[in-house]
Amino acid sequence: MVTRNSIIDYINDYLGSALIKDASQNGLQVEGRENIRKIVFGVSANLEFFKKAAAAKADMVITHHGLLWSQNPAVTGIFKKRIEFLIKHDINLASWHLPLDMHAVLGNNAQMVKKLGVKNIKSFGVYHGVKIGFMGLLPKEMTLKEVESKFAVKPNLVFNFGKSKNKIVAIISGGGYDMFEQAVDAGADLFITGSSEEFVQEIAREGKINYMALGHYNSEVYGVKALMGLVGKKFKVSTEFIDVANPI
Amino acid sequence: MVTRNSIIDYINDYLGSALIKDASQNGLQVEGRENIRKIVFGVSANLEFFKKAAAAKADMVITHHGLLWSQNPAVTGIFKKRIEFLIKHDINLASWHLPLDMHAVLGNNAQMVKKLGVKNIKSFGVYHGVKIGFMGLLPKEMTLKEVESKFAVKPNLVFNFGKSKNKIVAIISGGGYDMFEQAVDAGADLFITGSSEEFVQEIAREGKINYMALGHYNSEVYGVKALMGLVGKKFKVSTEFIDVANPI
Amino acid sequence: MVTRNSIIDYINDYLGSALIKDASQNGLQVEGRENIRKIVFGVSANLEFFKKAAAAKADMVITHHGLLWSQNPAVTGIFKKRIEFLIKHDINLASWHLPLDMHAVLGNNAQMVKKLGVKNIKSFGVYHGVKIGFMGLLPKEMTLKEVESKFAVKPNLVFNFGKSKNKIVAIISGGGYDMFEQAVDAGADLFITGSSEEFVQEIAREGKINYMALGHYNSEVYGVKALMGLVGKKFKVSTEFIDVANPI
Amino acid sequence: MVTRNSIIDYINDYLGSALIKDASQNGLQVEGRENIRKIVFGVSANLEFFKKAAAAKADMVITHHGLLWSQNPAVTGIFKKRIEFLIKHDINLASWHLPLDMHAVLGNNAQMVKKLGVKNIKSFGVYHGVKIGFMGLLPKEMTLKEVESKFAVKPNLVFNFGKSKNKIVAIISGGGYDMFEQAVDAGADLFITGSSEEFVQEIAREGKINYMALGHYNSEVYGVKALMGLVGKKFKVSTEFIDVANPI
Amino acid sequence: MVTRNSIIDYINDYLGSALIKDASQNGLQVEGRENIRKIVFGVSANLEFFKKAAAAKADMVITHHGLLWSQNPAVTGIFKKRIEFLIKHDINLASWHLPLDMHAVLGNNAQMVKKLGVKNIKSFGVYHGVKIGFMGLLPKEMTLKEVESKFAVKPNLVFNFGKSKNKIVAIISGGGYDMFEQAVDAGADLFITGSSEEFVQEIAREGKINYMALGHYNSEVYGVKALMGLVGKKFKVSTEFIDVANPI
Amino acid sequence: MVTRNSIIDYINDYLGSALIKDASQNGLQVEGRENIRKIVFGVSANLEFFKKAAAAKADMVITHHGLLWSQNPAVTGIFKKRIEFLIKHDINLASWHLPLDMHAVLGNNAQMVKKLGVKNIKSFGVYHGVKIGFMGLLPKEMTLKEVESKFAVKPNLVFNFGKSKNKIVAIISGGGYDMFEQAVDAGADLFITGSSEEFVQEIAREGKINYMALGHYNSEVYGVKALMGLVGKKFKVSTEFIDVANPI
Repeated sequence: MVTRNSIIDYINDYLGSALIKDASQNGLQVEGRENIRKIVFGVSANLEFFKKAAAAKADMVITHHGLLWSQNPAVTGIFKKRIEFLIKHDINLASWHLPLDMHAVLGNNAQMVKKLGVKNIKSFGVYHGVKIGFMGLLPKEMTLKEVESKFAVKPNLVFNFGKSKNKIVAIISGGGYDMFEQAVDAGADLFITGSSEEFVQEIAREGKINYMALGHYNSEVYGVKALMGLVGKKFKVSTEFIDVANPI
Repeated sequence: MVTRNSIIDYINDYLGSALIKDASQNGLQVEGRENIRKIVFGVSANLEFFKKAAAAKADMVITHHGLLWSQNPAVTGIFKKRIEFLIKHDINLASWHLPLDMHAVLGNNAQMVKKLGVKNIKSFGVYHGVKIGFMGLLPKEMTLKEVESKFAVKPNLVFNFGKSKNKIVAIISGGGYDMFEQAVDAGADLFITGSSEEFVQEIAREGKINYMALGHYNSEVYGVKALMGLVGKKFKVSTEFIDVANPI
Repeated sequence: MVTRNSIIDYINDYLGSALIKDASQNGLQVEGRENIRKIVFGVSANLEFFKKAAAAKADMVITHHGLLWSQNPAVTGIFKKRIEFLIKHDINLASWHLPLDMHAVLGNNAQMVKKLGVKNIKSFGVYHGVKIGFMGLLPKEMTLKEVESKFAVKPNLVFNFGKSKNKIVAIISGGGYDMFEQAVDAGADLFITGSSEEFVQEIAREGKINYMALGHYNSEVYGVKALMGLVGKKFKVSTEFIDVANPI
Repeated sequence: MVTRNSIIDYINDYLGSALIKDASQNGLQVEGRENIRKIVFGVSANLEFFKKAAAAKADMVITHHGLLWSQNPAVTGIFKKRIEFLIKHDINLASWHLPLDMHAVLGNNAQMVKKLGVKNIKSFGVYHGVKIGFMGLLPKEMTLKEVESKFAVKPNLVFNFGKSKNKIVAIISGGGYDMFEQAVDAGADLFITGSSEEFVQEIAREGKINYMALGHYNSEVYGVKALMGLVGKKFKVSTEFIDVANPI
Repeated sequence: MVTRNSIIDYINDYLGSALIKDASQNGLQVEGRENIRKIVFGVSANLEFFKKAAAAKADMVITHHGLLWSQNPAVTGIFKKRIEFLIKHDINLASWHLPLDMHAVLGNNAQMVKKLGVKNIKSFGVYHGVKIGFMGLLPKEMTLKEVESKFAVKPNLVFNFGKSKNKIVAIISGGGYDMFEQAVDAGADLFITGSSEEFVQEIAREGKINYMALGHYNSEVYGVKALMGLVGKKFKVSTEFIDVANPI
Repeated sequence: MVTRNSIIDYINDYLGSALIKDASQNGLQVEGRENIRKIVFGVSANLEFFKKAAAAKADMVITHHGLLWSQNPAVTGIFKKRIEFLIKHDINLASWHLPLDMHAVLGNNAQMVKKLGVKNIKSFGVYHGVKIGFMGLLPKEMTLKEVESKFAVKPNLVFNFGKSKNKIVAIISGGGYDMFEQAVDAGADLFITGSSEEFVQEIAREGKINYMALGHYNSEVYGVKALMGLVGKKFKVSTEFIDVANPI
């Protein structure tokens, strides 16, 4: 039998999450049954996802966005209903946030870089003192349309204030827009991220740089999927990715 | 029908807890059913207490020590089992910590002061910038034995380095030993608290002051009991105090 | 002649900005010429906006988003080019951020509430310890389409997990999505804000509440426009609002 | 002649105290005469202890609990009388707190582990980010009575909610009760510490673990005694341990 | 007999020092004998001053600069010798720092303002959120030489980059140079303080303002002298100011 | 052509400034033209210095004291005029503060140590957790007059409470007086620094140590001059040191 703790310990070690400062309480967040046969993976921990996971007979769910952040609320309202569902179905919840953004092989950013065939890869994008993204050279000069075609989904937003052909690309998944100006300073032709904020348009115009937002959710399916591959190979468990599609 | 929120709001207002800085997340901590017929009161939130409360058919439990403090743990181990029990039995948990130590009528300290018949009462004992205890004159000069006899339980520890007859008494329930030296400076003959730490003995000897520790638990039954009286009078609910005796 | 300082002092007093804690350094941010005949208003301080303001012969620009936040960067790159443009054209820059979100008459939220004809208005939405938005009753039960029609722009995003007819509305401009769950707890039928983040969809679904995002920019044109009205009436200066349209 | 500074420097180096964050100001706390012939060791710095040390003709006293902690008080009251006594008798005071709890050979925890003959020792018990205690296997399965018999003093408090025979033991001297739940998580059969707080009883019951409190004082005589052995061997000084017996 | 505590309490109340945040631990700093007949006043607590005070048979010394600041050092070296001298001579030390700079009647700044006959006085100079100095109009337009002649000592340093005749003066005693730029912004013709730092010269040149540094020590004799007057009138004690002249 | 960034990067690397915590924002502070032919060096960034640098046709100025510290002010008043001058003349400003005090070869302290011919040099003077000065043996026993003669300028202040012949010297440039007591503890005969505060005189008297203050400005010309030598050798640029003499 595969035990809950053997899986959690393995992933914690693999991602080196003990040393990564994060608002998320990474690792096991809600304890369920001890023996694990089926694990369901997803981007975010919420009731819709938990219901689908229960219907799929999950013993454990693993997400990028968990339920426990720096300051837990009282066990009331929506938070209570989420905890309650897990406890009543005896399902474990484990989550890894920054460790799954920044990991050099499995991370959201590493996976996107790989998808585009980027070369001369170096780490990029300081977040709370640590570089969590990557930048490098596209395999050839590409238009924005050509870059878009490499991803499964259409972007939410594109600004084309930069070159018509992109060579240097910088990538930070999710809410990476706060690091956009670092991409300008680093000389990137194109910055790819998940969601956007208002100031982004004028940074793009003044920095003469292209900008592509794939959606917070859509830019962060890669890390958990890669983790699912790793866990499925390492442990005798059945795995499944469940999508709760999200336009943001 | 009496609703959960009407009770919580009433107590929050009565104790003025919104303005009191506390490591405890005071108020509703775990949400249960909405309609309340029976409330069980106790000193501390733990599984033994919850089981007895469930057997007594509680819809809500109210304690001095709750489950949520400044840094919540993951929902695992002992913490998870406590949350789980409440959720599965649909019982509300509400807790008030400092507000129930320091309240001028219902508080642990106010109640002990009243039990001893103290006169010329003034507030005493600065804790994080606020006075949370009381001091004043005993109704007559009393020996330590005479003071002991006013309480239902024998003290855990007594140091008699002070006068044989006590007149000025200072009181802080629970872990109030950190404020012991303030009692020396304030000229008290006797300091009454709950638990003790190692340095206390020599402060008593050098301060030539008497010291009485009633036990952390035993010094903190007074506040919740007084709150039970208030709530029972205000709302049409049945109430009961459940004791999980504790030597510390 | 109208002087720079008379205008700045008047607005600071009117908005009570000295007492409002904010990441923005509210008030005069970059000093330009002393005598003011023309003021240009806008949402955000950036080069595109400054160029249009200079073409419009502005002596001062007033924005909601300024250039100086809690930690100023070195005077390099994009930040340097913005400062440089102002200095070379001798244009003053003054900005008010939170004071212009939360003001009870001029603020972005107060203006949107007014646009919808909301009644029984009360303050709503705690941000860093202070309520900055408003909630209340729509003049009649309205569909999402009917609410949309009250604003000049189409929303960026709508979730209709709530009632088909909305009565109770809660509003926080700009990046107010972090306060969305407070709208659920307060019993709102509809929450209106500017921009969105990934977690919003499932809060809407679980909270059975409608959600409308007008765009960060589009939800924050109201405060500066109202301020323009006030300043234009108070001082003998010419005023103009300049739009740098922004889809986010 | 043996000088004050040669002793202080030697102990600081041996314990590596420069790198250990502590509320105590470890090292020389009150300067007395320069040449040292006699050193008296004890658990806590207080007047009773100082008087006995002076009667024993001490040139220096070394304690686990000193007089200087993170926030020094004014030189008044009890603190003043303690400083005064040392200065008038020209006695040095040096103290090491955490360094003497956690040292792998001399520390309170290492010494208790040794007293019980524990094997397969590993570090245990995170306190402010560092492990300061130890856990391991008792030389054979032992009852609580058998464990008690290994120490010179009877425990203050025992909870026997766990197994009747103990094999895995975890130890943190003094006020180590805050780390009790870590012993549950680590699978210990028995947790040994100094003093107790109210919550401990129910953690023991729910964790199905045995608990033994030896007294804060009694659990912390071991470190200073071991340090006394080291110093007596290294320097030509006479040494003596002076006991100020303390029930807490 | 006049007691130590009656004097300390009276001054604490008079200066309102309980509400003033300060790096200095204001009030009684080192406890000496209880009955007070003679108090010696001075600017700074040090051995030279203590020796002269002891020779003058002081029971208490009161200074502007005491011995205890936010982080007390170990009782070693120079700090130890100072504490030792007081304890061996049983002399009390009490000190008030910011309360004696900023007090509206007795304070160093209020006294200097009075010395110059300043009118239309208003508070000036924000230090950690509070205004601690004063500014106002000189009784007539004065040259720097005329201002100098009002003080007992020649200034350490004068910069005359401003007007030849001064009307508006701003004053902060001691190390007030950090608030110099506030004097420029407030439109002062002359800024008077105690000591200086390197950047001051160019602020004076660019601000076209005059600058006068009287010496840290010499600008802070006024407050303690005024306090001496108050205490001598209020209590039956003999008083004396002792000067340890200091060029800085 | 020599570019701005090549020079900045080279100095940042050479001084290792990325790892040095400092209130100063070290490195490029205000961006000017890209190609550099002439660099002017000075102690402090101010308008007088900038005007002289512009007259000398500087493309870049490098100073020890820059314009950007931990909390930047709004771009108004004196700060605005300084920024404006640089921007209008397209001159770069780069500054290094602590890195240029503490560097083992180029630093102000290292240079003064070299000027005196000090031997057996070791680092000295803990400032925010790091040693930034040096101490060691003078080449022979020297009187204060002899030490003075080694510097280009007369000291601002000398206290001769120590030996008539000095052998052990400790040095910290600028406002190093806060570390004076560390020199006493380290057994120095003479402490050399830049500026002074009031408490220094009595520390010197009680520590029986000599004290020499060269002026904040005059003690900090050495580092930038040494840096000028380095940069002039490394890059094909013309260099010049410009003095804005300062008595403090």
